[in-house]
Amino acid sequence: MMEAQQLDRMFTALADAGRRGMVERLSLGPATVKELAGPANMGLPSALKHLRVLEDGGIVVSRKVGRIRTYTMQPAAFAAIDDWVRKRQTAMNQAFDRLIEAMKEIPEEQDRS
Amino acid sequence: MMEAQQLDRMFTALADAGRRGMVERLSLGPATVKELAGPANMGLPSALKHLRVLEDGGIVVSRKVGRIRTYTMQPAAFAAIDDWVRKRQTAMNQAFDRLIEAMKEIPEEQDRS
Repeated sequence: MMEAQQLDRMFTALADAGRRGMVERLSLGPATVKELAGPANMGLPSALKHLRVLEDGGIVVSRKVGRIRTYTMQPAAFAAIDDWVRKRQTAMNQAFDRLIEAMKEIPEEQDRS
Repeated sequence: MMEAQQLDRMFTALADAGRRGMVERLSLGPATVKELAGPANMGLPSALKHLRVLEDGGIVVSRKVGRIRTYTMQPAAFAAIDDWVRKRQTAMNQAFDRLIEAMKEIPEEQDRS
């Protein structure tokens, strides 16, 4: 149940182009709120709000030194999403393989004539 | 820009545990609305609404034969998400490698004493 909530928050965090832009920037290295707000043409309050959503989603972490808050990627940022997607893809491949096997069992048209 | 909107819709589609449950079911093979609503304890109108969000996100496709609508996974369902996540992970790894290289340039404590 807890994991479901965490996945909800992760996917929600990434469901916004502005927030994904911040993640794209942070994937290159740490940045301050100001550095993240600038390229996105965001006000600082708006940037902080988006960064909080990313932090709640476990995508980024922040640290305040003096008056400056710096954001970095959470090293395992995408692990849960990767894991969930991979499980679905494995299931899809297995379902496809079963379909192919089932089709082999069907006698071919010409064999019946 | 179009791609950004599509990614928004994909991540939004997966940001709900009920919808992810439907995707988990559909990864095993096609299913009707009724089959998808049942295990989720959803009413049909609610199930249809969620399925529409998944369809808008390019995760599932539907086909109506007679009066029965059947849903299947979109074969390339996760390709765009996979691609976006992988690019970020590559960037993170490269940033980490640069950090390691930069640290090698710093003279060690004992060398300076």
